[in-house]
Amino acid sequence: LGKIEIRISGLGGQGVVLAGQILGKAAAYDGKNVVQTQSYGAEARGSMAKSEVIISESKIGFPVIRKCDILIAMNQKAVDEHLKDLKTGGTLLIDSCNVKELQVKAQIYKIPATSKAEELLKEKLYANIIILGALTAIKKIVSNRAMEKAIKDSFHVDEITKNIYAYKKGIELGSSIRLTKNVP
Amino acid sequence: LGKIEIRISGLGGQGVVLAGQILGKAAAYDGKNVVQTQSYGAEARGSMAKSEVIISESKIGFPVIRKCDILIAMNQKAVDEHLKDLKTGGTLLIDSCNVKELQVKAQIYKIPATSKAEELLKEKLYANIIILGALTAIKKIVSNRAMEKAIKDSFHVDEITKNIYAYKKGIELGSSIRLTKNVP
Repeated sequence: LGKIEIRISGLGGQGVVLAGQILGKAAAYDGKNVVQTQSYGAEARGSMAKSEVIISESKIGFPVIRKCDILIAMNQKAVDEHLKDLKTGGTLLIDSCNVKELQVKAQIYKIPATSKAEELLKEKLYANIIILGALTAIKKIVSNRAMEKAIKDSFHVDEITKNIYAYKKGIELGSSIRLTKNVP
Repeated sequence: LGKIEIRISGLGGQGVVLAGQILGKAAAYDGKNVVQTQSYGAEARGSMAKSEVIISESKIGFPVIRKCDILIAMNQKAVDEHLKDLKTGGTLLIDSCNVKELQVKAQIYKIPATSKAEELLKEKLYANIIILGALTAIKKIVSNRAMEKAIKDSFHVDEITKNIYAYKKGIELGSSIRLTKNVP
């Protein structure tokens, strides 16, 4: 595995911070070293939010991401702001309901997370968990078992069923998704 | 205010990560910029956990703490490991139930958080929230109102009352605590 650096960005309210926390927990359950960072406040003004997860087999010396291996962008502004920090040949996962313009060299996975969340659960707030499912299916950086445990640990008992359902739908989406190679 | 850097450390299970998340949220509610970082996994092996919060009026350029202004140590090992990173004249808050040896130059506040939690709430897991109350009373880096809102936002509805109670008891402890100047 080596070291994997993931950045998740989107509008405040899209669950970017929670998604990073769940991903970080899951990787720790898999026995990895994890540093997980979130920014709030004026950095997030215009109500953008950012969350970062560094996962490594060995000790993490420098806990800051400069270039990420995986960028998860929940809206257009997240792509516009953070694409410059994606490594060449890195992986871009987007919520395709909220991202329209893409002129990038990257492995792009378009996940219609928001519309799936509305369709299946009547609430777009599950889009972040659907994206985590898709990420798990596509990149296999954490085990399915650890991810389910991390989700269960992150919600109150009466919210677990819907979130596990959203996660599994994300797994399905991620398993069937076609990689889009955009070479402008 | 400028920039304030806080590190919280203790055993896994002492609520160090959650305490950092609540403190970070509260500072954001106060309109500050916040970066909040947590480490899991092997860095936390021997089951130590670490959480960091940087609070600033202006944009936070470098999101890593080298020396902290405030160290919250929930057990002896946390003091032993992290005291070297406390700034000269910095503030040390300890859970005095779990820290016995102190030979340091710092402003030290000894909070009997674990025993208070057991006495008042029959559960030592509230010690982290008691410490947050004490911190708020002593250092006033976040407003009381923002802290209460952050606590309410961080727990399920049926857990809020006890946590707000723990927080208020922490405020009382912090308001009446005597500063211990240890100059070895």
